[in-house]
Amino acid sequence: MENETVSLEAIVNNNLTGRDLQEFNRIYYGKREHNELKLKDSSIAAAKDADFEIAAYGFPAKKEHTRPPRIVKVGLIQHSIAAPTDRPVNEQKNAIFAKVKKIIDVAGQEGVNIICFHELWNMPFAFCTREKQPWCEFAESAEEGPTTRFLKELAVKYAMVIVSSILERDENHSDILWNTTVVISDTGNVIGKHRKNHIPRVGDFNESNYYMEGNTGHPVFATRYGKIAVNICFGRHHVLNWMMFGLNGAEIVFNPSCTVAGEAGSEYMWNVEARNAAITNCYFTAAINRVGYEEFPNEFTSADGKPAHKDLGLFYGSSYFCGPDGVRCPGLSRTKDGLLIAEMDLNLNRQIRDRRCYYMTQRLDMYADSLRKVLDLDYKPQVVHENEK
Amino acid sequence: MENETVSLEAIVNNNLTGRDLQEFNRIYYGKREHNELKLKDSSIAAAKDADFEIAAYGFPAKKEHTRPPRIVKVGLIQHSIAAPTDRPVNEQKNAIFAKVKKIIDVAGQEGVNIICFHELWNMPFAFCTREKQPWCEFAESAEEGPTTRFLKELAVKYAMVIVSSILERDENHSDILWNTTVVISDTGNVIGKHRKNHIPRVGDFNESNYYMEGNTGHPVFATRYGKIAVNICFGRHHVLNWMMFGLNGAEIVFNPSCTVAGEAGSEYMWNVEARNAAITNCYFTAAINRVGYEEFPNEFTSADGKPAHKDLGLFYGSSYFCGPDGVRCPGLSRTKDGLLIAEMDLNLNRQIRDRRCYYMTQRLDMYADSLRKVLDLDYKPQVVHENEK
Repeated sequence: MENETVSLEAIVNNNLTGRDLQEFNRIYYGKREHNELKLKDSSIAAAKDADFEIAAYGFPAKKEHTRPPRIVKVGLIQHSIAAPTDRPVNEQKNAIFAKVKKIIDVAGQEGVNIICFHELWNMPFAFCTREKQPWCEFAESAEEGPTTRFLKELAVKYAMVIVSSILERDENHSDILWNTTVVISDTGNVIGKHRKNHIPRVGDFNESNYYMEGNTGHPVFATRYGKIAVNICFGRHHVLNWMMFGLNGAEIVFNPSCTVAGEAGSEYMWNVEARNAAITNCYFTAAINRVGYEEFPNEFTSADGKPAHKDLGLFYGSSYFCGPDGVRCPGLSRTKDGLLIAEMDLNLNRQIRDRRCYYMTQRLDMYADSLRKVLDLDYKPQVVHENEK
Repeated sequence: MENETVSLEAIVNNNLTGRDLQEFNRIYYGKREHNELKLKDSSIAAAKDADFEIAAYGFPAKKEHTRPPRIVKVGLIQHSIAAPTDRPVNEQKNAIFAKVKKIIDVAGQEGVNIICFHELWNMPFAFCTREKQPWCEFAESAEEGPTTRFLKELAVKYAMVIVSSILERDENHSDILWNTTVVISDTGNVIGKHRKNHIPRVGDFNESNYYMEGNTGHPVFATRYGKIAVNICFGRHHVLNWMMFGLNGAEIVFNPSCTVAGEAGSEYMWNVEARNAAITNCYFTAAINRVGYEEFPNEFTSADGKPAHKDLGLFYGSSYFCGPDGVRCPGLSRTKDGLLIAEMDLNLNRQIRDRRCYYMTQRLDMYADSLRKVLDLDYKPQVVHENEK
């Protein structure tokens, strides 16, 4: 990891100054100066001690006449696994719990109201191996499993909503697996769960070896702190997935992900997709990615002409928030565990919707009709040829 | 203009070197080194002489067993107006023709097959004034107007498909106006036209003072060089507009735009939206923006609490191409007329579609159904409350 670039942010801040830096920030992030917020000294010390990055940014809104501000503190946690992948399943899981608890404690002390991890945060991202054992043993009940139980306590302790993406074992339905995000309320109850709608089949990488397309629609969870939804990982490539959460009233949409850098990787799209979703749907988005290399016991191939290998590549972190206007804050590093905090006024969503009128100009009726037509087996695309005239 | 930042590209190239520059390029553009192509000396000399920027980049694809490469040269022209806005309409228009002809001549000599201008390229972007005279006089017949006649000659001369976005006067339908893009074939015929689907109503800025939502659907034009479509300006914020062109088979989608920098401007979204469209739809996109400040004879207000003014702000150029994998080339400058050329192998689209399977995992049936339900007047959003459990 020492040879890895820390972040685009680090490259920029180490090399640009003065007007060049301000203009870069304006064109790239949407703001000349980042609205960085002060953290408690005890948080900074705890982060140093536990070796994770911490940063906080503000997303304010204008004062309104008829609504008070709706300030919410939202946290994102990105982290690497905490024990080698050849250790017993529960040992691996407990090691992650122990590491992550230190980060949640700091989030709690900073008054974070809602927190979200990356996808399948309590296990290695083992789908690249195509092996079933022992990886399927990481699956748990969404409502009663050890991960949910671990988080319920912390949710109550810090009056925090926790968004937890896990591999779910559904014992009530033939023991099958799902890629599920559990939403735990500040009172420690499971508000509900959402199952991943779009399953990656990229190159030879096919997660439908493990679970199938979700059957939970596009739920929005009405929490004490705001209406939230979850677009799990690969769903970020699907604009209609993002859109349906907006049409159901989401104010913040989380995108817990596991995605790697490298030649066929996604890194240059990371700033684009969650950000485009924020813009077109006029809501806050949060993109969270895993950190680190994960070496597996057995080698596997990736149908890319390359020799067998034991890891998929670098999970590049770089978690960030984006406002409904498309202005984003700097991301966490590519290489290190981290806690990113945003203090956002949710009133900004409606202010941007009123200003830009993207919903009003959306013409959904035309598209509902067009999509229905496209689905006809004998659909004829609307193509204009020169010789038709 | 001397005080304006030239481009994000210039900031980066003036300040970063070595590994920092390569890593920035990899994370931002998607490529360590830009695939810059050599231009003819005569083109470089002509560009210098006529004071416009010129650059060319390659977007190659892998060799296939069963299809030959489908190499196409595509050009984008960004430019400022060429005469003061208080001059007679035809004088203003002819001054733009004279300037642009020099750029098309160079494109022709470089073997460009398809060329596209920014939105309403033959007139000032006068909608901010809310005045009807003399601006409506810039409107023309799409099929027979002076702009189409001017371009037909050049299309034949250079065997070039020309994509021309104009204000259309429809004499056969009550003399009304449309925001229309005309597609002229390499043989000089008008293949067809497309009318802008989504009309900006942003702040007090409302183009439906001049024309209404387009009635031409989502046509794809089958040209000699490939299947192309046009997402006009504000439609770039609407993901379903982009999507329908893809579902109709577009291989390259142009986004001719007029959009300004500044506090409430769009500049930080410019790299995001056409690029997200390329990624999610696995086709090439081209984003083209007007250049310069345009001062109008009479002052106008913009409902932003600021004093009346005579110009809308800087049209920031920055035109660029993006491949179906989301890798983009550097953009033209923010301040100068320019010709940007891409030599692209259209085989790349299918290669990316086969690799990433975004279409296969799209679940259009679910969304066609969901959108129809959303349109019901008594639609109940899918919201989960804690106390429901």
